[in-house]
Amino acid sequence: MGALRLPSLTSIFAVSSARSSLFHRRSNQLHLRKLTSATRVTAKSTTPATTEAAPAESTTQKLPVQEQGITPRSQDFNAWYLDVIAMAELADYGPVRGTMVIRPYGYAIWEAIQDYLNVKFKETGHSNMYFPQFIPYSFIEKEASHVEGFSPELALVTVGGGKELEEKLVVRPTSETIVNHMFTQWIHSHRDLPLMINQWANVTRWEMRTKPFIRTLEFLWQEGHTAHATPEEAEKEAMQMIDVYTKFAYEEAAIPVIPGRKSRVETFAGANRTYTIEAMMGDRKALQAGTSHNLGQNFSRAFSTQFTDENGQRQHVWQTSWAISTRFVGGIIMTHGDDAGLMLPPRLASVQVVIVPIWKKANEKNEVLDAALSIKDILHSAGIKVKLDDSDQRTPGWKFNFWEMKGVPLRIEIGPRDVSSRSVVVSRRDIPGKPGKVFGISMEPSVLVPYVKEKLDEIQLSLLNKAISFRDSNIVDVTSYDELKEAISQGKWARGPWVGSDEDELKIKEETGATIRCFPFEQPQGPKMCLMTGSPAEEVAIFAKSY
Amino acid sequence: MGALRLPSLTSIFAVSSARSSLFHRRSNQLHLRKLTSATRVTAKSTTPATTEAAPAESTTQKLPVQEQGITPRSQDFNAWYLDVIAMAELADYGPVRGTMVIRPYGYAIWEAIQDYLNVKFKETGHSNMYFPQFIPYSFIEKEASHVEGFSPELALVTVGGGKELEEKLVVRPTSETIVNHMFTQWIHSHRDLPLMINQWANVTRWEMRTKPFIRTLEFLWQEGHTAHATPEEAEKEAMQMIDVYTKFAYEEAAIPVIPGRKSRVETFAGANRTYTIEAMMGDRKALQAGTSHNLGQNFSRAFSTQFTDENGQRQHVWQTSWAISTRFVGGIIMTHGDDAGLMLPPRLASVQVVIVPIWKKANEKNEVLDAALSIKDILHSAGIKVKLDDSDQRTPGWKFNFWEMKGVPLRIEIGPRDVSSRSVVVSRRDIPGKPGKVFGISMEPSVLVPYVKEKLDEIQLSLLNKAISFRDSNIVDVTSYDELKEAISQGKWARGPWVGSDEDELKIKEETGATIRCFPFEQPQGPKMCLMTGSPAEEVAIFAKSY
Repeated sequence: MGALRLPSLTSIFAVSSARSSLFHRRSNQLHLRKLTSATRVTAKSTTPATTEAAPAESTTQKLPVQEQGITPRSQDFNAWYLDVIAMAELADYGPVRGTMVIRPYGYAIWEAIQDYLNVKFKETGHSNMYFPQFIPYSFIEKEASHVEGFSPELALVTVGGGKELEEKLVVRPTSETIVNHMFTQWIHSHRDLPLMINQWANVTRWEMRTKPFIRTLEFLWQEGHTAHATPEEAEKEAMQMIDVYTKFAYEEAAIPVIPGRKSRVETFAGANRTYTIEAMMGDRKALQAGTSHNLGQNFSRAFSTQFTDENGQRQHVWQTSWAISTRFVGGIIMTHGDDAGLMLPPRLASVQVVIVPIWKKANEKNEVLDAALSIKDILHSAGIKVKLDDSDQRTPGWKFNFWEMKGVPLRIEIGPRDVSSRSVVVSRRDIPGKPGKVFGISMEPSVLVPYVKEKLDEIQLSLLNKAISFRDSNIVDVTSYDELKEAISQGKWARGPWVGSDEDELKIKEETGATIRCFPFEQPQGPKMCLMTGSPAEEVAIFAKSY
Repeated sequence: MGALRLPSLTSIFAVSSARSSLFHRRSNQLHLRKLTSATRVTAKSTTPATTEAAPAESTTQKLPVQEQGITPRSQDFNAWYLDVIAMAELADYGPVRGTMVIRPYGYAIWEAIQDYLNVKFKETGHSNMYFPQFIPYSFIEKEASHVEGFSPELALVTVGGGKELEEKLVVRPTSETIVNHMFTQWIHSHRDLPLMINQWANVTRWEMRTKPFIRTLEFLWQEGHTAHATPEEAEKEAMQMIDVYTKFAYEEAAIPVIPGRKSRVETFAGANRTYTIEAMMGDRKALQAGTSHNLGQNFSRAFSTQFTDENGQRQHVWQTSWAISTRFVGGIIMTHGDDAGLMLPPRLASVQVVIVPIWKKANEKNEVLDAALSIKDILHSAGIKVKLDDSDQRTPGWKFNFWEMKGVPLRIEIGPRDVSSRSVVVSRRDIPGKPGKVFGISMEPSVLVPYVKEKLDEIQLSLLNKAISFRDSNIVDVTSYDELKEAISQGKWARGPWVGSDEDELKIKEETGATIRCFPFEQPQGPKMCLMTGSPAEEVAIFAKSY
């Protein structure tokens, strides 16, 4: 596949001022009538990763200006990522440093994530509710490791209704403290347990180094919070929810995450144990894509969240919390995208099939559009998310490239000859060029609908399998620190036996940039020696550089 | 119907300490094994409306402590409202003054509102997206009447990441300013218009007098924002959305709102015209339940949101915004509720049918539960939201009262004799006692399912008709200020011809407490004279006291 698949963008950008924004130029260009559909490869300079800096508040930061479409992924992964977000109109920078506007096409991915998880949360016995986002500062201070973990990142409201507040308020970075404050009012007896709730909300963490979707000052997430009568139940719940996340990642997002336990160093501020799903991005950096915490009694002791057990004794509850955020959208982009742009797994795509009608002469237009519309209706009735791009402002070639850049899994092309033969051409986003193109698929609903569904399923599976191969070919089993360093320096993940200390772990981070991503649940059999200390080890850990 | 329908609560409360909270007591009491099902009426003292005060920040405010269940609605409407919210577990106070925790049973109503409106917004061409909640303070100052309207109510973030910010940030009270800031980057040509988006979000207004759902420091809402090329299109959009809200209120919430135009005095800060839906609550106060604003070019001029029209001229866009919030949940409670508690319209109820199995002897239990479970499955398969209350900790009579208090539209009772005759007893929430009870409805799915659906439809319609009668019997047509004063002093709404000045309107507010709720779209025919000035008037206005 060519590095650049949006030739018309390139040709327009060449004449535009270097100062005008990408958005401005694309917007103008979308309406030009005559666009070539030839595919050219154009060299382009590397776009500086401007987002990694931390400018002052209220800047008018823009996504990178570029002259020639999407930066090739292999050339500069970060620039490619920002280009895809800009050109596919997934997000934009907000006016306040580090904030992000999630645009409709990006928000639709988040809505698809919500739709799936919301059902799973309810099936596993959780109810949605909503807690206020303003938390008294004193609450944050109650749990010692929690305040240590979060206090550097807090946004504080100090003025309300024109008056200085007596107690400053924290804009929630997470809700364990206020949840416990309320739980004390709702939990009295063991019969009130388990209490299992979830909320969809925005949260704020004053991050210095931000990147759209991956790390933003404000982000959207769901946070589950549960209280149980026994530590066993809390552990079971924490494991159940990391399992829900794992299934979601594999089955819906086609991301082969590795579920496992965090090291002590990487455990959530306030948790006894943190479970995680770790995903390998296209640049082989790890992304922590979801976490589930066994909080033990840390918060219940800090807030006196107690219940009377069956023997009439007062006990502190055992708790969990778990979250997935809009960061996951970034994970989808960085797992499946390629030089042509975004590639969406069919199950999370808001447009699964785009229909591009093709005509040359005016007398062909009506019959082609009629057929295209009828195909749209057929697929829509079958529950397939389909879009007909019937604009006559753009050429078919331009549309092919545009919808590939937007990551639509399947394209149906239909021209005058297809209408005559009552058939269509179907092209897969994941297989570029001719190999991904099949001619002569009948328009008959009894043929077309099952064919399209089968192809979408195939693409879903193919994306997963490709990501599994990529992941597995980039994880190296190591038995010594030297081997670990070698693997990390090659940009790979290192997996090796570990019983090192927290200090050993921090030393590795300092010397290699890698951290323990997790102790994976799936462990190799047989005796093992710690790669660092040489002592007998019970588990392997996975080390990698991460976002 | 008796004023009190939860006798078991009463009997328990009598022995509980006056200091313990309502929640505490109810929770304990729910698990007592032997509860009488007799219905008693018990006098109770008026609960003070503690929420109307404005205590300092971070109080531990509680919903009112009470000794004998729900305050009768006729005795103290405000106390009744707070009791219903507490006992039906709809919401609770947050730790920060004026904030609210929306509990699962209350949040489910909001989710039902979202589910309906989300579909309608998309059908009318809007896309969901998300804007950051932090807005640079300078943005708010750009539109003159906007800053005047909102500056007294702002919450300000002044510290982030441990540092004093250079520019303080506003926690969004509404998003017109940041939306325009972003629109300037996305809108260039007339081909970019209309731009029609919506977001579901939390917003913050530093209100001094708060009341759960009705007016809280933070609340949830949707805010639609659109930009158009012509004033006609913007006006059409503003009208379309108030129409969507009106249909929602009538058809889903069974609330016969009156749609109309706000007076200049009551128009949104920054709008040219505000359309509203006004609902009459059970105490005959008006509730502004949704608004749609024609913003004209006020914000586009302040932010330079421009497009190039078909003649190549730069023009400012014409805009709208429109919103419905969690306040609507309060409107549902105050429209339909009665002395027994909540009464939910079937289309918004998260539990539409509750099944209460009845047995006396142990050998009856299994066959009754089996039949109840099978009825549950039948109804569930038919898409009816059904709950089986099979707890053996509570008596059937207790359950009857409990689920009536929770507002469940329909109850199915099934005992050993019903099992023998393969029939059930069906009771309507909206018709108390025997008149609402029908015996001998066959368990056969082909009979039961259509019967239940028909009854739910009947209840939905009946709630609407009852609310329409109540509304219409409490609106008085007036022709003079004296008549208006008389109507208002009786707690009614006054409708009369109006061409008075803003000063006249403010004088009425001062002297009677009533404001112009709207100039209703539906206007009487024939010549009219202004009730205040005697001049010829083109329209009638509706005056009322309001929340």
